[in-house]
Amino acid sequence: MLLLSCPDQTGVVATVADFVWRNGGNIIDAEQHTDEVDGVFFQRVEFTLDDFVFGRDRLPDAFAPVAERFGMDVTVRYSADRPRLAILASRAPHCLVDLLSRSAAGELPAELAVVVSNHPDHADLVEFHGVPFVHAPVGDDPAAQDRTVRELLQAREIERVVLARYMRILSPEFVDAFPQRIINIHHSFLPAFVGAEPYRQASERGVKVIGATAHYVTAELDEGPIIEQDVTRVSHRDGVDDLARAGRDLEVSVLARAVRADLENRVLVRGGRTIVFH
Amino acid sequence: MLLLSCPDQTGVVATVADFVWRNGGNIIDAEQHTDEVDGVFFQRVEFTLDDFVFGRDRLPDAFAPVAERFGMDVTVRYSADRPRLAILASRAPHCLVDLLSRSAAGELPAELAVVVSNHPDHADLVEFHGVPFVHAPVGDDPAAQDRTVRELLQAREIERVVLARYMRILSPEFVDAFPQRIINIHHSFLPAFVGAEPYRQASERGVKVIGATAHYVTAELDEGPIIEQDVTRVSHRDGVDDLARAGRDLEVSVLARAVRADLENRVLVRGGRTIVFH
Amino acid sequence: MLLLSCPDQTGVVATVADFVWRNGGNIIDAEQHTDEVDGVFFQRVEFTLDDFVFGRDRLPDAFAPVAERFGMDVTVRYSADRPRLAILASRAPHCLVDLLSRSAAGELPAELAVVVSNHPDHADLVEFHGVPFVHAPVGDDPAAQDRTVRELLQAREIERVVLARYMRILSPEFVDAFPQRIINIHHSFLPAFVGAEPYRQASERGVKVIGATAHYVTAELDEGPIIEQDVTRVSHRDGVDDLARAGRDLEVSVLARAVRADLENRVLVRGGRTIVFH
Amino acid sequence: MLLLSCPDQTGVVATVADFVWRNGGNIIDAEQHTDEVDGVFFQRVEFTLDDFVFGRDRLPDAFAPVAERFGMDVTVRYSADRPRLAILASRAPHCLVDLLSRSAAGELPAELAVVVSNHPDHADLVEFHGVPFVHAPVGDDPAAQDRTVRELLQAREIERVVLARYMRILSPEFVDAFPQRIINIHHSFLPAFVGAEPYRQASERGVKVIGATAHYVTAELDEGPIIEQDVTRVSHRDGVDDLARAGRDLEVSVLARAVRADLENRVLVRGGRTIVFH
Repeated sequence: MLLLSCPDQTGVVATVADFVWRNGGNIIDAEQHTDEVDGVFFQRVEFTLDDFVFGRDRLPDAFAPVAERFGMDVTVRYSADRPRLAILASRAPHCLVDLLSRSAAGELPAELAVVVSNHPDHADLVEFHGVPFVHAPVGDDPAAQDRTVRELLQAREIERVVLARYMRILSPEFVDAFPQRIINIHHSFLPAFVGAEPYRQASERGVKVIGATAHYVTAELDEGPIIEQDVTRVSHRDGVDDLARAGRDLEVSVLARAVRADLENRVLVRGGRTIVFH
Repeated sequence: MLLLSCPDQTGVVATVADFVWRNGGNIIDAEQHTDEVDGVFFQRVEFTLDDFVFGRDRLPDAFAPVAERFGMDVTVRYSADRPRLAILASRAPHCLVDLLSRSAAGELPAELAVVVSNHPDHADLVEFHGVPFVHAPVGDDPAAQDRTVRELLQAREIERVVLARYMRILSPEFVDAFPQRIINIHHSFLPAFVGAEPYRQASERGVKVIGATAHYVTAELDEGPIIEQDVTRVSHRDGVDDLARAGRDLEVSVLARAVRADLENRVLVRGGRTIVFH
Repeated sequence: MLLLSCPDQTGVVATVADFVWRNGGNIIDAEQHTDEVDGVFFQRVEFTLDDFVFGRDRLPDAFAPVAERFGMDVTVRYSADRPRLAILASRAPHCLVDLLSRSAAGELPAELAVVVSNHPDHADLVEFHGVPFVHAPVGDDPAAQDRTVRELLQAREIERVVLARYMRILSPEFVDAFPQRIINIHHSFLPAFVGAEPYRQASERGVKVIGATAHYVTAELDEGPIIEQDVTRVSHRDGVDDLARAGRDLEVSVLARAVRADLENRVLVRGGRTIVFH
Repeated sequence: MLLLSCPDQTGVVATVADFVWRNGGNIIDAEQHTDEVDGVFFQRVEFTLDDFVFGRDRLPDAFAPVAERFGMDVTVRYSADRPRLAILASRAPHCLVDLLSRSAAGELPAELAVVVSNHPDHADLVEFHGVPFVHAPVGDDPAAQDRTVRELLQAREIERVVLARYMRILSPEFVDAFPQRIINIHHSFLPAFVGAEPYRQASERGVKVIGATAHYVTAELDEGPIIEQDVTRVSHRDGVDDLARAGRDLEVSVLARAVRADLENRVLVRGGRTIVFH
């Protein structure tokens, strides 16, 4: 699969399609998008490799001349690959439980390699699912914990990180170590109610709709590219606890959809925004 | 109908129900809500007056002892009353057209007394519907126009004002003249994207959902009590124009629902938030 | 708490409120509904018993004269009661996993007494949560299995039964043993796509929205009173598998909301339809 | 723009892209879909004609060899074309008013050539918008009215027909005269509640969600390919009148989205189902 972006110009679609076809691939899905404001063309081309004339290792090199000609930024991914995934969690179990269940049901094209938590609470549940659990307590030295977790993920060759209501702010070093590879779930409709206690803020403002937002993590807190959002209606009857409970259900479904989109290589990022192909 | 709020205490429901029943009314709908954080009780009691032992004019006085006993803040409304309604509009026609159609279809329990606009564009359409139209241009003196419109509404004994995408900020004097009687439609999911050009802001932030918010107008811009909100999903494919078009449909439906709730006396306001009974 | 229905007539609200108040209760929530077509009045009155003048056992008798006077059908429930709940499941784990998690998180006001399945698959998971699991295989004699399960639930004094994608049709004797006490989740927007394989039917008809329906089980298959429904948008891109996956998420949330509404005593049934108070 | 379908096979995407590029076009949008069950490939390719080497009249002939080679079913459309549109209405104004407003606002890429109604009610409104209105009463001879309307549309060279709550069943001859060119709005979530009075049916069944469905009209009543559907939540509080009012708003928005999708050439039909590209 090719994920590419380049300055908008004529001939890109034809040339890419021709490249695939001439080398024995068959395009099974192609989506494109042109950002007319910035003049950028994006494309996701999924094709079979069964009859491809050269092995998958040589694909990037073979495509390089095309990429160079159009000034493309290209990523090559293979649908059959299952990236090594880590989940970071704290006390709240809902997102963790959901991801464990989906992983067990085969809904996530990834290898769930480890669950790390700053609390010991969910060790049994994680191990019940046959997934390694690591307890990384914060203790007196938050920076040391952050470093420990980062090194642990690097040692295990983790390729994607999901923050399943992980209640720690990651250091810039941590974020830099996994560029556009960390997905967080924020319990509000960003950019409304940035920061802590969004349900309390929502209750005080008297909103009629609450939301949840899944986004890639960047150095700027709550400012990373949004992958998925959704909302649910609430009313004056809902106290802060009710908002929190409705919000948990929303967090579960929004995070699951974002993680799937990412693992299925359907997300491109540019300029702080995402393009999420279907 | 009684709309009441008071400190939460025992006996309120029984006493109010008993008052209605003993005087010959029949409760056809009653909804209540207790704000447990602030300890406030709210109730909306709708009852028939056909067999009431005294005329509707004497109802407030007759109820006064009950209100005093429980420290109630009481509003008496009559379902049969149709408040005099004014719509303020500018160039964008969508909310105006919708409200005119709903008024013509008998969906709004109000007398649509006048449409005022700072532009002459929609005079023909408004008059086609048999509603007086007044053109109040801004010219060189915005304060004078604000005053002119306010005095015009007061002279016509207007009881509710709907800002149907009216692109003027009302003066504090204007707002004070119609306390909790002015409904505005804001083209974002407040409190996100406060201020001008919310669709441009939404596009730049890359949100996956856009919203609209109907609220009572207070002296603080975009801060009044929210009556109704709703959202619609968008994607990277939607440019600013697409967001604006999807947003217009949302504005129409959110504003219509808020205006109906208000005219049906289903909205209570307290502490910057609303209670919207069904 | 009183759940009552009676022919619509004057004085019911006042009399019930007076009964509660005079005996030392404080109404904390009351909702009512009048079905104007059939002339029936429904009410749910929740009140404190702390200062009640007689014990909870004597409440039904004390209220009997009021019930008789108005021809009421009355149910007395206690918020503090936690009915004994059984879940029946088959191979599909999603609804079962969700209910186990919610039960563990304290979201369900019930005592989860047993999980019964016609397959052994989920024994470990259920027991991990500390809930008894019974495997009741169908074998050669489906009627015997039906009877075995029914007797097992009766022996364990089960008060509510949730069919969490249980792939067996219950016998009339089973249904009669738990009148309005069995909740099923059907994987379509009933009454569309009655019967087996609704996702295949939906795919073939080319619908743009799929749904799920939670309902009480009656002797008529797929015809019981609907408690909750919801839908999600789909498109031509979604094959039968995608519809099934989207549908599973919908089934989970619709069933959970229905079970909560039932356990919180917010559902009244009349004439094949439900009234679900908030 | 090319709308095409053909048996799924290798080389289609590349060949079409190459055809466009070699002849001077630039692809600005391309979407494709493969129906894996039936083995059919669908594509919508939108491209500029500014630098095309031959005029638009010769495009179909030039593309014919490609179409023949792959066994394609091809439609050529031009974004700049504005098909001649007729609206058929009866007494209910809501869909008609909405389409007139959208047409006036420039939201519909069509020339609104005539509104025909079996009632005279909306003549003034239609003429206010500068659109010809024809009153075609049914009288004693429904078949004659059906023929009159059909001939009228043919005489005016109408290319698309929208039934905006037109309360007549079209004859097979009428439907045949505009194959896949007539869009109807049905006031239910088809296939639930087929036939007359769906809101009454919905109320009696006690559903918690109501819907509306826009579809192409075929000889089989309520069975044509679905273009768009949507739903809204309702509750026991909503009587038949409330369902009808909520339904009207739904009908307006669903019909408008379907008409736009059709006019923007985003809909392909195959085997009773639609593919609606974005």
